[in-house]
Amino acid sequence: MRIDGTAYRTIWAEEDGSVAIIDQTRLPHDFAVVRLGSLEEAAHAIRAMLVRGAPLIGATAAHGVALAMRADPSDSGLERACAVLLATRPTAVNLRWALERVSGRLAALPAVERAGAAAAAAAAIGDEDVAINRAIGEHGAALIRAVAERKGAGEPVNVLTHCNAGWLATVDWGTALAPVYVAFEQGIRLHVWVDETRPRNQGASLTAWELNRHGVPHTVIADNVGGHLMQHGRVDLCIVGTDRTTATGDVCNKIGTYLKALAAADNGVPFYVGLPSPTIDWGMSDGVRQIPIEERDGREVTDLTGRTADGRIETVRVTPEGSPVANFGFDVTPARLVTGLITERGVCPATREGLLGLFPERR
Amino acid sequence: MRIDGTAYRTIWAEEDGSVAIIDQTRLPHDFAVVRLGSLEEAAHAIRAMLVRGAPLIGATAAHGVALAMRADPSDSGLERACAVLLATRPTAVNLRWALERVSGRLAALPAVERAGAAAAAAAAIGDEDVAINRAIGEHGAALIRAVAERKGAGEPVNVLTHCNAGWLATVDWGTALAPVYVAFEQGIRLHVWVDETRPRNQGASLTAWELNRHGVPHTVIADNVGGHLMQHGRVDLCIVGTDRTTATGDVCNKIGTYLKALAAADNGVPFYVGLPSPTIDWGMSDGVRQIPIEERDGREVTDLTGRTADGRIETVRVTPEGSPVANFGFDVTPARLVTGLITERGVCPATREGLLGLFPERR
Repeated sequence: MRIDGTAYRTIWAEEDGSVAIIDQTRLPHDFAVVRLGSLEEAAHAIRAMLVRGAPLIGATAAHGVALAMRADPSDSGLERACAVLLATRPTAVNLRWALERVSGRLAALPAVERAGAAAAAAAAIGDEDVAINRAIGEHGAALIRAVAERKGAGEPVNVLTHCNAGWLATVDWGTALAPVYVAFEQGIRLHVWVDETRPRNQGASLTAWELNRHGVPHTVIADNVGGHLMQHGRVDLCIVGTDRTTATGDVCNKIGTYLKALAAADNGVPFYVGLPSPTIDWGMSDGVRQIPIEERDGREVTDLTGRTADGRIETVRVTPEGSPVANFGFDVTPARLVTGLITERGVCPATREGLLGLFPERR
Repeated sequence: MRIDGTAYRTIWAEEDGSVAIIDQTRLPHDFAVVRLGSLEEAAHAIRAMLVRGAPLIGATAAHGVALAMRADPSDSGLERACAVLLATRPTAVNLRWALERVSGRLAALPAVERAGAAAAAAAAIGDEDVAINRAIGEHGAALIRAVAERKGAGEPVNVLTHCNAGWLATVDWGTALAPVYVAFEQGIRLHVWVDETRPRNQGASLTAWELNRHGVPHTVIADNVGGHLMQHGRVDLCIVGTDRTTATGDVCNKIGTYLKALAAADNGVPFYVGLPSPTIDWGMSDGVRQIPIEERDGREVTDLTGRTADGRIETVRVTPEGSPVANFGFDVTPARLVTGLITERGVCPATREGLLGLFPERR
């Protein structure tokens, strides 16, 4: 997508073989491109969350292997690279998948060919992510276009989203936001309500930043506001991302997603989920009961970082000393509240039959 | 209620005739009692929100008239005092009510008796607020006790609340939190989930502070979390306050209340509203359509104030430059989602018939 008119991806190879990323920890107050020149720098970028979002983590890991192969293409070098990268975010499914894919290809090659093959594999992983997300965008944009045609000329389509499932979370396009970007590219008038997304504020910091820089009209709101807007007809559809989707269509996504789905159902607002098919967990059937919900560091709730009026970055504590906090990272939206799943193969009902209709090889 | 073992109200008359308040703008990081010695100081305390919450604003205004009468008890002095105080928060219903009540009494008295009568009227307004809230607390505590008996010994009752309808918003006891304080006083084991309440963070700053200082077990959570907790049986009942309640039981309260009521309904969790009967608007029947929702300064969303690790109070900006924000102060929870209204006369269904059963004089 574009940043002030210039096209970017979140990760790319430079001609000298180094890898460039956007340091997302400095957004939205500072836009900085960081060069990764070694395995250690790639591992640090994942561990310290300079890059985040499952697809982007996978792509960064693949590039990390390529960087490692330039320094030491031996079998032990390959093994070490995978171990170092896997340890950065051990629960990230895409990370393991990308490492297995790249290392599986390299193992059969002579050492001298590994660096080039790893770079090619990393590029392919990135390109595939872009193609999947672009397809999600095409299918979702059709839903937005249908609303636009119903509303009539001049009336923008109001989309509400939660957290950041935009291009910054992927290599390009995003998942939940891909339909927004494709619709915008097609000239459909739209406006995005951006949930702040406490406690980590990914909406206020990342989604608002990427929409703003690409030029998509949007408004940041507190997470508490969406229900009120839906009661008053000011949301045409919701589109969110997902970290994990059961075979029955239950959606595990950023904490608070379930509350928006309830409000959408109560007000007849369609609630869609944009997802690349690798996030479907085909072995799971009851999201609320089966998906473990990560409890995170309470400082994400008590402390908040931002920019002072004179430009300093400061972290301030909001809660009183002595008050305990709890910090659940995700919640599960039952499939009955989901209008449809937007995958790279098309839109389907959030049911086992719906998903199997698009992915018959899983029958 | 108690602050570290010492009993306080939010406002009290000192022996020298001055009035003492807690400066709520400095909570939760700093506890400071401020003396008001003049009409101007009382007006400033309301305008600058050193005091907030409808009942406390009313009581402060009454004390403000008493302070004014010590300086100038003439008819013009009385008129001016009411005008100055009314202008501080022109939309506050309790403010107007308290001023009319006090000035109505004073108008008939000779100037020399006015200062004493005003002080007595202010004290009476405070005592009445305390009595009403204590009664709400007794009725609500019975609901908590019923849950405690069902759960069995040792299992705390988990109450979820939104915003601050605690003793800091009233003269004492609070409205939504009065049942919690009474139940706590009665030795019932309980624990309160405290919604942070973006964008003004009244939960994280005021509710957490007052529960903490009184010694009530509690945990601060992001506003996004309540639905997840209810899905997993970790909330026994919700109790919130209200700014305005229709004759049919629709509840206008802090933005985000509606989302919690939806989650409660979806999970079979009782959802109660604590309210003093003056907040019932007997002329209104459709809250979503009829109650105007205040839009507030966007800086409440973009900027946030807290304490740095080394003790400085700093304000930081969270959102990117150039991203618009919207800031709706309240939402309306339809009566169908409200299990019961806890008033000073007892608990009733959130229906016209329910309310008229407790307030037959309104038939």
